[in-house]
Amino acid sequence: MIQSPDPARISPHRGLTFSGEVLPHHPGQVCQLAEATGFFNREEVSIAEELVGERLAGGEASGYLFLFAHHNQNLAGYTCWGAIPGTQSSYDLYWIVVHPDWQGKGLGRELMARTEALIQQAGGGKIYIETSSRDQYIPTQGFYGRMGYTREALLPDFYAPGDGKLIYAKKV
Amino acid sequence: MIQSPDPARISPHRGLTFSGEVLPHHPGQVCQLAEATGFFNREEVSIAEELVGERLAGGEASGYLFLFAHHNQNLAGYTCWGAIPGTQSSYDLYWIVVHPDWQGKGLGRELMARTEALIQQAGGGKIYIETSSRDQYIPTQGFYGRMGYTREALLPDFYAPGDGKLIYAKKV
Repeated sequence: MIQSPDPARISPHRGLTFSGEVLPHHPGQVCQLAEATGFFNREEVSIAEELVGERLAGGEASGYLFLFAHHNQNLAGYTCWGAIPGTQSSYDLYWIVVHPDWQGKGLGRELMARTEALIQQAGGGKIYIETSSRDQYIPTQGFYGRMGYTREALLPDFYAPGDGKLIYAKKV
Repeated sequence: MIQSPDPARISPHRGLTFSGEVLPHHPGQVCQLAEATGFFNREEVSIAEELVGERLAGGEASGYLFLFAHHNQNLAGYTCWGAIPGTQSSYDLYWIVVHPDWQGKGLGRELMARTEALIQQAGGGKIYIETSSRDQYIPTQGFYGRMGYTREALLPDFYAPGDGKLIYAKKV
């Protein structure tokens, strides 16, 4: 009899493994991944990397939780989220990033579903996602809509003149 | 000839002085002030105190700026604000607190006006304030409206079921 792999850790995508463990090589991997998308500016890439560093330095008390999808030793995508201080059970999804090689294959949807399940298990009631109102983010906005998120707010000129912030939310 | 006091540091309120300097006794004073209002729960008081501690530990790089209004050695009120990372020129006003002995005397209005002037001098374009939609905050909401802030969003059930988040904004 062949030993079955742990279904919680093996995705329908052949060879992908999911883990919430944050290791010293992850800040560099996250930086490379965010750069590889060509989607984020330098400040955004730095913030993504810094959050992994804060988690490494401070542990879960940093408030940042991660789910990494690895293919062999490479990072295919990840999410970063955390409970919102001062709220009963609201969470922010800070980052969801998928490597260009893995885009269009359902990995974003799977990362999101797994992250939502982890938030629900932790007692989360509502998940918030913020994104830009710029045209560049129309596919992102469509993805959140397909994942069941409702657009609850638009803050005009939040990021810069002409670049507003959209706030999406979903009950879990 | 009598030496005039510095008009930037002396308020129309007799004996009040304003300062942005953060000193080791301020976390304790902020905690006592927040408790004295009877307005904030324990977690909120802790967060208020922690932000002063983070500023003391990390300096301005902490991202938290303060304006304290002192009367003799006592803290009559304060504001706490900071630039929002990832934005061109948006700022969050995190806290504005006035001691009960000083409420209804225009100190909140003066703290707000001075804080807005400091944000404007630093190149700020828009100021955001978040508050609760609960009835307890109706006077707060009215104050922001009188100060020229527009209600740009309501996120229902953000803080807890039945307790939404209101987001106010003002161009400076």
